[in-house]
Amino acid sequence: MAFKENYPSRLLEEAVDAISSLPGVGRRSALRLALHLLRQPQENVHHFAQAVVNLRDNVKYCHRCRMISDDEICSICADNSRDHNTICVVESVRDVMSIENTGQYHGVYHVLGGIISPINGIGPSDLTIRELVQRVESFCEGGTDTVMPEVILALSGDVEGETTSFYIYRQLSRFNVRITSLARGLGFGDDLEYADELTLGRSIVNRQIFRP
Amino acid sequence: MAFKENYPSRLLEEAVDAISSLPGVGRRSALRLALHLLRQPQENVHHFAQAVVNLRDNVKYCHRCRMISDDEICSICADNSRDHNTICVVESVRDVMSIENTGQYHGVYHVLGGIISPINGIGPSDLTIRELVQRVESFCEGGTDTVMPEVILALSGDVEGETTSFYIYRQLSRFNVRITSLARGLGFGDDLEYADELTLGRSIVNRQIFRP
Repeated sequence: MAFKENYPSRLLEEAVDAISSLPGVGRRSALRLALHLLRQPQENVHHFAQAVVNLRDNVKYCHRCRMISDDEICSICADNSRDHNTICVVESVRDVMSIENTGQYHGVYHVLGGIISPINGIGPSDLTIRELVQRVESFCEGGTDTVMPEVILALSGDVEGETTSFYIYRQLSRFNVRITSLARGLGFGDDLEYADELTLGRSIVNRQIFRP
Repeated sequence: MAFKENYPSRLLEEAVDAISSLPGVGRRSALRLALHLLRQPQENVHHFAQAVVNLRDNVKYCHRCRMISDDEICSICADNSRDHNTICVVESVRDVMSIENTGQYHGVYHVLGGIISPINGIGPSDLTIRELVQRVESFCEGGTDTVMPEVILALSGDVEGETTSFYIYRQLSRFNVRITSLARGLGFGDDLEYADELTLGRSIVNRQIFRP
């Protein structure tokens, strides 16, 4: 074989190495992407690289909710028209974007930055749970409001999500807050036949008044 | 909606724009990749961007065969143990890598850098066909060798590939070279039942002595 590891160029190999380090991108796709970039105008490739570096170097996290932001306080936390009595606790930035896309939520958020996962070595101290507790604490202390604050635990329904929800629940139970979690049940358009037993069971137990 | 176009940060949006400009990467995947990069150590992200920029800025193309190379002449053209009497004409760098991976070819290459495609506005002059003709010409002129040089047209079997092959064939027909093309037929492991008629027909016409 004339190629070292089959790559005709060390530069190409290094680019493929770098691109294939992205999740879900294999070496074959990485090669395709590298050869695509080679065919692009030089300034486009520079712009691409600069956008990625800029994001990593200059992005900020909201001091209050830890959401990605261009400022010290994110646009949601800075929005006085939103309900600051309701904090929705989510795992990641993407979850905030998903919930925002529904257009159904008008409170604020708290981004944990992950989920408790002993198998991945992620404990409560690796997440922003302490900051959440402080946030709720200062909220309850300063609370001249008659409305009881609400914390929505909007974590995924797997074991790790449930564990994290339970951990946070215990941390917050000493405060005078309402702690809720997302409704579980059949999705819209879901087929009864294919629903798992847990979900279907929960859907029956938590059945709701029919509103046509 | 609190987000401008649903992105919590302009930097994030710009990175998603850049990443989703890659072929086969949608905005949702681009967001996933951008958030992945955000979680990586800063030096890894810099290394990633640098590898891509380095490739685009510093890669060379072999003066002889137009293959990607770190030097003026690629490792294949520089290899005296290879058969320089046989030139395999391919569309792209990837094709060279594919043929090299078979381990069955010991000649040299000529990378066209594309294929004649009127619909995409690519004509013969956009490819390295002129360079190929010059290469063959100078080869035939300087030919003290008794071996007749061979040009293998290893282009894809679609209309554009056939058109390009025919164009090159006409350009080279005035030289004393053997012009061949890749064998077409049933692939190894292919099912007769599912083969298209053209391929199966060609397989019967070009049948070979059975060698068990």
